[in-house]
Amino acid sequence: MDKFNQPIDAAAVPRFAGSTTFMRLPLAPSAAGLDIALVGIPWDGGTTNRAGARHGPREVRSQSTLMRRVHHVSGLEPFSIAQIADVGDVSVNPIDLHDALKRIENGLSEIIAHGSIPLCVGGDHLTTLPVLRAVACRNAVGMIHFDAHSDTNDTYFGNNPFTHGTPFRRAVEEGLLDPKRVVQIGIRGSIYDPGEHDWAREQGMRIVYMEEVVRRGVEDVMAEARQIAGNGPTYVSFDIDCIDPCMAPGTGTPEIGGFTTREAQQMVRLLDGVTIVGADVVEVAPPFDIGGITALAGATILFELTCLAAKQVSKSRTATVPGSAGAPR
Amino acid sequence: MDKFNQPIDAAAVPRFAGSTTFMRLPLAPSAAGLDIALVGIPWDGGTTNRAGARHGPREVRSQSTLMRRVHHVSGLEPFSIAQIADVGDVSVNPIDLHDALKRIENGLSEIIAHGSIPLCVGGDHLTTLPVLRAVACRNAVGMIHFDAHSDTNDTYFGNNPFTHGTPFRRAVEEGLLDPKRVVQIGIRGSIYDPGEHDWAREQGMRIVYMEEVVRRGVEDVMAEARQIAGNGPTYVSFDIDCIDPCMAPGTGTPEIGGFTTREAQQMVRLLDGVTIVGADVVEVAPPFDIGGITALAGATILFELTCLAAKQVSKSRTATVPGSAGAPR
Amino acid sequence: MDKFNQPIDAAAVPRFAGSTTFMRLPLAPSAAGLDIALVGIPWDGGTTNRAGARHGPREVRSQSTLMRRVHHVSGLEPFSIAQIADVGDVSVNPIDLHDALKRIENGLSEIIAHGSIPLCVGGDHLTTLPVLRAVACRNAVGMIHFDAHSDTNDTYFGNNPFTHGTPFRRAVEEGLLDPKRVVQIGIRGSIYDPGEHDWAREQGMRIVYMEEVVRRGVEDVMAEARQIAGNGPTYVSFDIDCIDPCMAPGTGTPEIGGFTTREAQQMVRLLDGVTIVGADVVEVAPPFDIGGITALAGATILFELTCLAAKQVSKSRTATVPGSAGAPR
Amino acid sequence: MDKFNQPIDAAAVPRFAGSTTFMRLPLAPSAAGLDIALVGIPWDGGTTNRAGARHGPREVRSQSTLMRRVHHVSGLEPFSIAQIADVGDVSVNPIDLHDALKRIENGLSEIIAHGSIPLCVGGDHLTTLPVLRAVACRNAVGMIHFDAHSDTNDTYFGNNPFTHGTPFRRAVEEGLLDPKRVVQIGIRGSIYDPGEHDWAREQGMRIVYMEEVVRRGVEDVMAEARQIAGNGPTYVSFDIDCIDPCMAPGTGTPEIGGFTTREAQQMVRLLDGVTIVGADVVEVAPPFDIGGITALAGATILFELTCLAAKQVSKSRTATVPGSAGAPR
Amino acid sequence: MDKFNQPIDAAAVPRFAGSTTFMRLPLAPSAAGLDIALVGIPWDGGTTNRAGARHGPREVRSQSTLMRRVHHVSGLEPFSIAQIADVGDVSVNPIDLHDALKRIENGLSEIIAHGSIPLCVGGDHLTTLPVLRAVACRNAVGMIHFDAHSDTNDTYFGNNPFTHGTPFRRAVEEGLLDPKRVVQIGIRGSIYDPGEHDWAREQGMRIVYMEEVVRRGVEDVMAEARQIAGNGPTYVSFDIDCIDPCMAPGTGTPEIGGFTTREAQQMVRLLDGVTIVGADVVEVAPPFDIGGITALAGATILFELTCLAAKQVSKSRTATVPGSAGAPR
Amino acid sequence: MDKFNQPIDAAAVPRFAGSTTFMRLPLAPSAAGLDIALVGIPWDGGTTNRAGARHGPREVRSQSTLMRRVHHVSGLEPFSIAQIADVGDVSVNPIDLHDALKRIENGLSEIIAHGSIPLCVGGDHLTTLPVLRAVACRNAVGMIHFDAHSDTNDTYFGNNPFTHGTPFRRAVEEGLLDPKRVVQIGIRGSIYDPGEHDWAREQGMRIVYMEEVVRRGVEDVMAEARQIAGNGPTYVSFDIDCIDPCMAPGTGTPEIGGFTTREAQQMVRLLDGVTIVGADVVEVAPPFDIGGITALAGATILFELTCLAAKQVSKSRTATVPGSAGAPR
Repeated sequence: MDKFNQPIDAAAVPRFAGSTTFMRLPLAPSAAGLDIALVGIPWDGGTTNRAGARHGPREVRSQSTLMRRVHHVSGLEPFSIAQIADVGDVSVNPIDLHDALKRIENGLSEIIAHGSIPLCVGGDHLTTLPVLRAVACRNAVGMIHFDAHSDTNDTYFGNNPFTHGTPFRRAVEEGLLDPKRVVQIGIRGSIYDPGEHDWAREQGMRIVYMEEVVRRGVEDVMAEARQIAGNGPTYVSFDIDCIDPCMAPGTGTPEIGGFTTREAQQMVRLLDGVTIVGADVVEVAPPFDIGGITALAGATILFELTCLAAKQVSKSRTATVPGSAGAPR
Repeated sequence: MDKFNQPIDAAAVPRFAGSTTFMRLPLAPSAAGLDIALVGIPWDGGTTNRAGARHGPREVRSQSTLMRRVHHVSGLEPFSIAQIADVGDVSVNPIDLHDALKRIENGLSEIIAHGSIPLCVGGDHLTTLPVLRAVACRNAVGMIHFDAHSDTNDTYFGNNPFTHGTPFRRAVEEGLLDPKRVVQIGIRGSIYDPGEHDWAREQGMRIVYMEEVVRRGVEDVMAEARQIAGNGPTYVSFDIDCIDPCMAPGTGTPEIGGFTTREAQQMVRLLDGVTIVGADVVEVAPPFDIGGITALAGATILFELTCLAAKQVSKSRTATVPGSAGAPR
Repeated sequence: MDKFNQPIDAAAVPRFAGSTTFMRLPLAPSAAGLDIALVGIPWDGGTTNRAGARHGPREVRSQSTLMRRVHHVSGLEPFSIAQIADVGDVSVNPIDLHDALKRIENGLSEIIAHGSIPLCVGGDHLTTLPVLRAVACRNAVGMIHFDAHSDTNDTYFGNNPFTHGTPFRRAVEEGLLDPKRVVQIGIRGSIYDPGEHDWAREQGMRIVYMEEVVRRGVEDVMAEARQIAGNGPTYVSFDIDCIDPCMAPGTGTPEIGGFTTREAQQMVRLLDGVTIVGADVVEVAPPFDIGGITALAGATILFELTCLAAKQVSKSRTATVPGSAGAPR
Repeated sequence: MDKFNQPIDAAAVPRFAGSTTFMRLPLAPSAAGLDIALVGIPWDGGTTNRAGARHGPREVRSQSTLMRRVHHVSGLEPFSIAQIADVGDVSVNPIDLHDALKRIENGLSEIIAHGSIPLCVGGDHLTTLPVLRAVACRNAVGMIHFDAHSDTNDTYFGNNPFTHGTPFRRAVEEGLLDPKRVVQIGIRGSIYDPGEHDWAREQGMRIVYMEEVVRRGVEDVMAEARQIAGNGPTYVSFDIDCIDPCMAPGTGTPEIGGFTTREAQQMVRLLDGVTIVGADVVEVAPPFDIGGITALAGATILFELTCLAAKQVSKSRTATVPGSAGAPR
Repeated sequence: MDKFNQPIDAAAVPRFAGSTTFMRLPLAPSAAGLDIALVGIPWDGGTTNRAGARHGPREVRSQSTLMRRVHHVSGLEPFSIAQIADVGDVSVNPIDLHDALKRIENGLSEIIAHGSIPLCVGGDHLTTLPVLRAVACRNAVGMIHFDAHSDTNDTYFGNNPFTHGTPFRRAVEEGLLDPKRVVQIGIRGSIYDPGEHDWAREQGMRIVYMEEVVRRGVEDVMAEARQIAGNGPTYVSFDIDCIDPCMAPGTGTPEIGGFTTREAQQMVRLLDGVTIVGADVVEVAPPFDIGGITALAGATILFELTCLAAKQVSKSRTATVPGSAGAPR
Repeated sequence: MDKFNQPIDAAAVPRFAGSTTFMRLPLAPSAAGLDIALVGIPWDGGTTNRAGARHGPREVRSQSTLMRRVHHVSGLEPFSIAQIADVGDVSVNPIDLHDALKRIENGLSEIIAHGSIPLCVGGDHLTTLPVLRAVACRNAVGMIHFDAHSDTNDTYFGNNPFTHGTPFRRAVEEGLLDPKRVVQIGIRGSIYDPGEHDWAREQGMRIVYMEEVVRRGVEDVMAEARQIAGNGPTYVSFDIDCIDPCMAPGTGTPEIGGFTTREAQQMVRLLDGVTIVGADVVEVAPPFDIGGITALAGATILFELTCLAAKQVSKSRTATVPGSAGAPR
């Protein structure tokens, strides 16, 4: 088992001690040799209302020290079947939006070049755009997107096309997302314009309002989501504001009536089988958090995503490299 | 569309900028010409335990800047079909209970005299009594009442008949409420006296305990509620403590085991069709709030009520003034 | 009715006034003459991560001033059918773990010697071990245990057998618990080792994961729990972290995806009929709490447990002392 | 030494354990036999802006558990030279101002009747009026008053003569205070009206602005204060808002530029020699406090006042009862 | 007196009621006719570390409702001698730095065009640059600058010349500031580079470290500051982080060892006689504030500046328009 | 310059990004080659009241990211004249006091063995005892000790000799401290027993009460302190509770009337010339902190101590290794 990186053992070093990398894993200088790269994107320059997600990676790291080694439901031990590490934060620029988008794309491209699956912690939702530019540099990908907001607006404040309310309109326009393989789950709350969601639907994106999830149940909706994503490469984007503000108050644009964390965990587990080429947890804004509970929710979702990705890595290794049974690259 | 007041556009002026009226609407000097008057009642002199609801209107206004123009489920655009404004706070007196009750009644009477529907933000629940004195000045009204507490106690601290635990007993005694058309939903928590709820039932009021809502479901209970209210003029009173304290901690008398905001939104939406002559959101007590989430819940419920009232106004205008299709008065 | 201790009447003395004993009951010098003894155990020396539960009894007392006299669902009036008091805190030692365990056991033994049922407020979960040493001093007892964690680990930090992660392994080893009559409900979250829960199951303990509760529903699970406990003497241990961190953030080891307080209340009410020989509410850690909501949840669960115990006392008095109908001992 | 009440020993029972009376002293059923009665006045019905001082006594009690037995500067051991206890809270009425003032006066009159010196913890500053009615029931007293505000306004909100901004105007009018023996120290901040302080000065009261204290130094100002009070019976009123809001944020009407706690302690110690017939610490409003620091400041000032009063009691006992050296009554 | 705008009277409308303009003054549609324009600049796009100052204007407005009409030391009544109003927030753009700087400059230019003195509430310190572009559009001005940081760095994050750490280097380069008439007071804390302050000194700017203020005293330093500013037009820039973080925690770059608010008030009062052509209070970042104390400090400094500006306006009116004694323009 | 470890440059990587070691220095696997080792001691098992200092190192690291490279008063650049790194946390045991003391001593002994000067961040004050066992393993050292408490009590809770109230009594008894070379500065607050400080004085320790510091001034007291320490090896222990609770609320045993951070910085700077063999900042308890200000104060004091130690290292290197001018070992 120890051929892979192991987290610091909390029965030896208490959780409040030691350094605060993602899940107490080693801090790697690059993604070289990693199956899965946990990476922070501390930038919120696309935020139109309350900034603060720039502090997200630090707090999610801190709360992720509560994660342990084994998933209690699936029995999966991600750190025993895949090589995983914290690769630190990508370079950002809090003052210059265009430079920041470029730096983030470069940082992710380097991870992708190593063949690692990036699991990102934002940062506001605009950070997903440069991540997609790196992940979908060759072909458009599908996306399963958990959020209170569709984030497919066009422009803000005169003609600004790049904000955390517009990434997925840009991503479709840039050919990064295949809109027919995109599903947005949990959308809710008042909107600016009656046509706001129409554009998305016209592209072929599927919007599942929270009310529909409540009516149909999580399992049914996730079955549809898996079908929409199909077998192709798929990105998973988890905006923490899909969760109810009482469970995730530390975010910039809270909307009441959200998911419980129980539902969120169940939804993420039901992604099993989807071909994940990258994922993120975004919009954790610690200055508005209370007692770290939003960052804890973010860290736990990151653990769930890590389990999924590790299983996929392990499976694919067994399948494709028959002679080398699970050896790390 | 622009014949009616429009909220400040957040894609032009960010939500953290500009003044903080209810839903970013204009501040009107009076209710003259308004279909719907949003009004604050910053008074908590009837509070028997933790005061603070006096600060409710200010914080609900602040959080209401997060509301947008269109209801995502119904597609309703309240500000396009009714003339709505913030008319400021009624005059109050934090030191003299009887003077305060008179001032509040006078403030509301003026709104009523303009033919506007008042949507009030308290203040503690005793503020509903003078509001009812204004709203039901001619005839008793029905009431759909969301709350953890029945608020039909008799007296406190020797013989005080006026506290936030007694308004509805007084309202029935004063002939403001028709008890047979009153339903209280979500009542829960330990009570002072076994006979506490009996008085209400003896008058003909219907108490639906939280446990009954959980058993029957929100839709079924709301169908009964609509039947109880019938077609007559009905007041809607929403005590924020009907919501669970984790989602609405900023209140004076929290009781665990409450509604989720998701259920609360659904219940309010199911009021569609009830003849609303006034409504309130009360007991938001910011000094006990956390990160503004209680005020955000209050603001969103206010938005839901505004949509209902706007639809009703629009319908009634079409119905009764055939030649003047939707023109503002 | 007044032959039993009554809480201070909030309609005479406001809740923010007067002293802060459990539920505003008298502070008794000992358990002599009491049917039920409410007792604090302000100790958290077994905590492996975030300490703070030492402050639990004080804050639960403070929030318990919100409790009233009558249970709104069952109509039960616990203070009218049983002699109940706050007996203060047992002696503790924050510096010496072994001395503390001895002091707690002694304190509880004294309560047991008076024939009172102890309802304890911790303190971390290791405090349950000395309580069980007192309660089960003659025979092993069954246990219905609500928690996010099984607390059946073996050792920590080199060979420390006594932490808040190990009490039930020790209790089984010491013959205090009959593992076949133990059920753990709500267990969830990542675990250290795949075999962590196997030991418990091998002893015959039943672990019901949160996911199973969600699938089967609370009523079905509690029916099984009552069957497991059977008619024998049973201890009820309620770790506040079984509740979701958004509703109970004030705890040392939060796990998302927990029970709602509504479910928690329902589960505790469904203990009706179990022979309770003692109970506790543990792991309320006020330094991590927000607005007192965790302590309020703890206080309300304590009220629910008090109702159960009072009913049991009253029943057993009627049954066993036919001539003295309900008189206090 | 043990002939007097002793606080619980923190080297035996940790500070977080046990009940939370003032300074861990016994809770006495009445003031009978006490030299000094520590009493809570949980009422803030006179507050014109932010209420919350009703919660003051409870939090000051909680923080006062940090007090120890010996004053480190004077070496005084108050609990060894005077009989002191917590007599609980006086009866109040949060709903009816006039009834509340009467109840508070009655509560204090009973303490006075026992010959005890009352040291009160408010409550808002209007509570000082009924206290003075009891303390000065026979003759006007002098007053040394620490505050940011003169509290000598006339009326509010139409003609309300009784608010926390008016007590000392009323007290002078009622003949309770001898204005020539009144000094107000630390007054600062913007005022309503240029004539606001003139009335006070016209009565003969001395107002020492904060700026004058800074210029002259605390010792010089306190020498003048002692001279103004002279040898006659003097009341000491300590409004916590005299301290800077960063050190005492938990108050209703904060004014920046206040005293440090170091200066406050020094000023109170320099009251040595004044004939104290009663004192209070008021306007501690916990809902606006942060981490209990305001209540801690209040508790420590209460300890300083207790030392002064105990010394005075001890001296007077030696002086007037030569044969019974220090025996408790 | 009432020829000028008056704040809402708190003895009629309590401070928690009514709208939250600066100091409860009317909200004016433009600066036309105003002697002094209070204006918000809700923008923090130049922040290199913790953002949040975009929320500054809203919270300073809220806390400014605690200001009253008369300065207790000078006796000055600003609202009786000058026409003052809140002109709302200037237009900003949270997404585009260059557009934002242009919008802010335009907003201020309009105020300047009306001949009003702008008193600004930021916003981060980069907002002072476009304000200076408007205020010093014809001639360079002097500046008295209270801050923990010199803010004369050159570039950040590759070559970004515009951040809240660089405004005064840019302002000197652009000829907006006359460096010989600039004094920076309270500078402290570790710095990036030994030459960081040398550039400023080489231009002729005077840096007074906090340690020098402590050694010489506030009066002496302010005498020097007045001499440096001389009789020419002078801008006053007050960065809230000049105050100690315990008194002003709500800021992005706290440095311990700062001014007390008492010293800050004294320093601002000692600006009397300086020719103020504009002023600001910047870097109040509410998401990091505690109980509103930073915003309260900001609001009170704004009141002090308003008194100074009103006195200057009144004096100049008397001097220059002999026949029209004090009439508003 | 780059022959020594440099902190991450905040003008390239923003302060909210990257990992959170002490002052953004590299994390070294051991103290080998270091002049100065920054080390965390996350343990608070000696705490008698409010625990939480176990979380101190993590939060001080986080706040220390605000430190820059150059001391603005002395111009000293510590990272250019000494080899400094974060060596992580020593091993601890939160459950077993004796084992923890041994582990801490071992961890420090290893640092000492490398010839590095340890600058420790606690942890509660009992951690200083095992540090002294390592530092003074050969000869007793002197100590300059900043604190509100003397920490020379004897035993607690029955006969516990090891608590955070007793370390210096033990250290004298064990011959680790030369009491004649020990000075305690800032001691204040009520005490348990009149003889509590007598023991310390009898050993020859010098206690300087806060009141004496206020009277004599910081410079005079520190001159005496330097004289007491003399030229011998001296340990510096900085208990954060020497600072006033408003500036350092995050601590277990707050006492009002403390030092300002300005005074604290000045005192530490006046240690220049003392031969520092080790130092610590202890009792930072984040669960009781507000907005990180206590941890920020702790981090800044650590920076001041680092500057002192670096200067001493640099001086001694020049002095003792004439041929190798400043080369790192």
